[in-house]
Amino acid sequence: MAKAKNILFIMFDQLRWDYLSCYGHPHLHTPNIDRLASKGVRFTRSYIQSPICGSSRMSTYTGRYVHSHGATWNGVPLKIGEITMGDHLRKQGMDCVLVGKTHMRADVEGMMRLGVSPDSIIGARVSECGFDVFERDDGMLPEGPDGSYDPDGAKEYNKYLRAKGYESDNPWHDFANSGLDADGNVLSGWFLKNSREAANIAEEDSETPYMTGRGMAFMEQAEGPWCCHLSYIKPHWPYIVPEPYASMYGPEHVLPVVRSDSEKQNPHPVYRMFMDNKVGEAFSRDEVRAAVIPAYMGLIKQCDDQMGRLFDWLEETGRMEDTMIVLTSDHGDFLGDHWMGEKTFFHDTATKVPLIIYDPSPEADATRGTVCDALVEAIDLAPTFVEVSGAEPAYHILEGESLRPILHGEATETTRDYVICEYDFSATPIAHFNDVPVKDAACFMVADKRWKLIHFEGGHRPMLFDLETDPQELTDLGDSDDHAEVIDRMYDRLFAWTRRQSQRTTKSVQDLVDMRTKTGRRGIVLGVYDETEAPLDQTVCYRDRKAANMKSGPAG
Amino acid sequence: MAKAKNILFIMFDQLRWDYLSCYGHPHLHTPNIDRLASKGVRFTRSYIQSPICGSSRMSTYTGRYVHSHGATWNGVPLKIGEITMGDHLRKQGMDCVLVGKTHMRADVEGMMRLGVSPDSIIGARVSECGFDVFERDDGMLPEGPDGSYDPDGAKEYNKYLRAKGYESDNPWHDFANSGLDADGNVLSGWFLKNSREAANIAEEDSETPYMTGRGMAFMEQAEGPWCCHLSYIKPHWPYIVPEPYASMYGPEHVLPVVRSDSEKQNPHPVYRMFMDNKVGEAFSRDEVRAAVIPAYMGLIKQCDDQMGRLFDWLEETGRMEDTMIVLTSDHGDFLGDHWMGEKTFFHDTATKVPLIIYDPSPEADATRGTVCDALVEAIDLAPTFVEVSGAEPAYHILEGESLRPILHGEATETTRDYVICEYDFSATPIAHFNDVPVKDAACFMVADKRWKLIHFEGGHRPMLFDLETDPQELTDLGDSDDHAEVIDRMYDRLFAWTRRQSQRTTKSVQDLVDMRTKTGRRGIVLGVYDETEAPLDQTVCYRDRKAANMKSGPAG
Repeated sequence: MAKAKNILFIMFDQLRWDYLSCYGHPHLHTPNIDRLASKGVRFTRSYIQSPICGSSRMSTYTGRYVHSHGATWNGVPLKIGEITMGDHLRKQGMDCVLVGKTHMRADVEGMMRLGVSPDSIIGARVSECGFDVFERDDGMLPEGPDGSYDPDGAKEYNKYLRAKGYESDNPWHDFANSGLDADGNVLSGWFLKNSREAANIAEEDSETPYMTGRGMAFMEQAEGPWCCHLSYIKPHWPYIVPEPYASMYGPEHVLPVVRSDSEKQNPHPVYRMFMDNKVGEAFSRDEVRAAVIPAYMGLIKQCDDQMGRLFDWLEETGRMEDTMIVLTSDHGDFLGDHWMGEKTFFHDTATKVPLIIYDPSPEADATRGTVCDALVEAIDLAPTFVEVSGAEPAYHILEGESLRPILHGEATETTRDYVICEYDFSATPIAHFNDVPVKDAACFMVADKRWKLIHFEGGHRPMLFDLETDPQELTDLGDSDDHAEVIDRMYDRLFAWTRRQSQRTTKSVQDLVDMRTKTGRRGIVLGVYDETEAPLDQTVCYRDRKAANMKSGPAG
Repeated sequence: MAKAKNILFIMFDQLRWDYLSCYGHPHLHTPNIDRLASKGVRFTRSYIQSPICGSSRMSTYTGRYVHSHGATWNGVPLKIGEITMGDHLRKQGMDCVLVGKTHMRADVEGMMRLGVSPDSIIGARVSECGFDVFERDDGMLPEGPDGSYDPDGAKEYNKYLRAKGYESDNPWHDFANSGLDADGNVLSGWFLKNSREAANIAEEDSETPYMTGRGMAFMEQAEGPWCCHLSYIKPHWPYIVPEPYASMYGPEHVLPVVRSDSEKQNPHPVYRMFMDNKVGEAFSRDEVRAAVIPAYMGLIKQCDDQMGRLFDWLEETGRMEDTMIVLTSDHGDFLGDHWMGEKTFFHDTATKVPLIIYDPSPEADATRGTVCDALVEAIDLAPTFVEVSGAEPAYHILEGESLRPILHGEATETTRDYVICEYDFSATPIAHFNDVPVKDAACFMVADKRWKLIHFEGGHRPMLFDLETDPQELTDLGDSDDHAEVIDRMYDRLFAWTRRQSQRTTKSVQDLVDMRTKTGRRGIVLGVYDETEAPLDQTVCYRDRKAANMKSGPAG
């Protein structure tokens, strides 16, 4: 083993932290991912910065909180001024390459303002969140009466499918994400009922194997050092999977739903909005869970098998020796827990993700196969990668912290006392149906190992969970007088966090310290009455100068 | 009179709010500025966003708080991503031109990252905080053993002086900002004692008349519509002025110092650092005040005379008919009050500035000569100017609010409940001498018409002033138990402010509202069990599709 030269940064989408056997799932066996965990460190408290794809990813890719980068929801462009993982790594001569999904929306207006052409190298990188693109595939080509949410979705993948004979204008939908009935009717995976079907596609042509192959194709031709972001759409919806995975799990493998009647009684008004919306209502139905969860498990099982294929190949080709492998997810999935579907709320189900890091360096031998319960955030990955590339992370820009000390057994905790997660639902149907003004739709979560507080704008009380006595987060203590002190303490932390200098990114801490003594020696002399009080070395330029009398002007 | 076509945005530097006769100074008569006030609205509670040139100005020029733009001190570059007054106005076809000082430091690294060449038009604008430069002059060419703080300072002005026969390598220093003794020795204006001298320059060649002439030269050739930022260095130090202004004021005109012994007894530890530094100690000496203040008053009197020259010319040339005129300052000057010099703290002396706005429009007739005590911030100017240019201000970027409703008599208050001012002293000698870590050097002021709270990082208690019973801010109530409730309330406001979404600048509020109902009609169908639950118009694209059986692959 050698020091990591390259980084393989694997991200799944909407993979719950507890749906892997190494994280304790009793029925879903994921031996390949577990194998990676046995060679690396498995983190049990890794939080993402926003429970929605785009914002979570923009935080991961910039190493900065959502409140700092401003891409607060899917489709909100990441400002051109934001500095990305790719910018940091390329400075060290490390390529930063995308294979798969980012959910990045380019800041077209900002690019125009600065004259950055989208077809220049710089423009292409800025448009792609700092990545050089081997293949971009956000993994979806939805189609509605007003067009597609992402007209470029599944672009190369659809070409691949068509070349393989999947005849359709949108084989991503008609084959990879739909079933088929006996009469040749497409059973769309967008309808949850059809999650019971097998996707009408050969397993090896479905999305996860396809993207694994694309990742291998990149690595095969890459020289490095590189950081390859291999970013899968699955097990994200549409929830449908081909055989043999479609038949692999049944009702007996579905975990009991985590919810209680008390959650429905007098709930926090914002939580109520999320429960009472269409998605929450759907996932509260047994038939929905019974249809979706086996498919979701099948998708994960397929991901694990593809990890087996990938890791075997990395071993065979010697790449395991000098490649750091990181495996994580952008957020979880409620799947009916807490009377909700989707991910856009703050229970661990949505905000905590699996995170496994394998570091080939000998320094990491001491921690192989260990489990770490430090408070970790997704923004820690960028500085970790910068350290692999050989540089000190630029902590005046990057808000996370490198996990190297943990990976190398020098620390068991990060230096933080709390994690932060944010959600802005101002652009969502929930805000529409509940008439929530944009300014009132922001929510902030602050959590330590014991307590989780959620603050809502709009004048609401907070929510509070005791993660120790109530790890399933079934009892909201946000209006408990007995917890006023805890609530105050958590609010103090949130307040301290909101006051951080997140935008002072053009000067490092060292730069600022250096500036302290600089202006005086560049001629700015303040509070000096006369020459006798002035340090000679600072004011030498203002002494012994001679001039003619010009008080009345040159001609006077 | 007509609707304002152009904007003349005049800024003085370090001009105290109370050193004009229209703001009540008993000895300093400023009839020309008073004349502008009699034709416009005079604001009595206009606060700047940071009590230091660069940061205050970056807020004014971007319409955003320091905490939002990140240029937290002089010399901290404004990030390339920040959108400026010039960007907003040029969109409407209004030029935005600089004549004088900005204290802008370009984000050279950001420009390189985005391939923005400094000698392109875009690069030049980005480097100059969004202005097209008619003449940039930050007004100082200091010289120290390590070179100059601003090697480009007074560049054109020094050329002008040399052409007029002021022979020196730095006539800005040797003539405009120094006296001369009988033996031909230059008496540097950097030494406060020399403030008693007359500057060794003909009055008409000194900086304020020079810059007035440059402003007129710009307007003479400009076609418009334009916003001209005529930005003077004076009455900023070096405190020295030519005759006749040098002899105009004596000890009898110096106002009594505003300070009390109690301020020195057990002061707030951060306030103590500011009092106990070299500048504070110097300005606490009577001889320093006696030397500096008459010169400071003379500089202001000269500014006022130049305003007379300028306004007369604007009237004669008809420009007064279609030009909005704004007159303000970037911050004040302690001048020994509260045992301090300079400006870098939070008393009104430093944070409140004069603001007079003359609007030629008939709509403004109702408010001519009125005084407005609304809570105004410097960041309100950018949106006010955008309205003059004919557009709705982009309030997802601009954090101030347009003053048009006040100018047009439609409102007497802004919509805000409090003003914010910030100071980051992490790069200062005070932090050096007191070993203050960078993270602990941030301070935030939140004030309404009654209370002013100052929060300091680093675990200190706040300071609190009752502006009603103690308008001179001599009694710090920050440790008063009787004021715990007020302190809590002011902290609630500060907390609400820190939580604002200041970085979500790529989508407007209207954009976000529009997005609420958009994804569904672009094919993202969530929480729909089967076709019977699905709105036909949203899911029409997923119905009645046909496919071949491909479950076992094309060849299967």
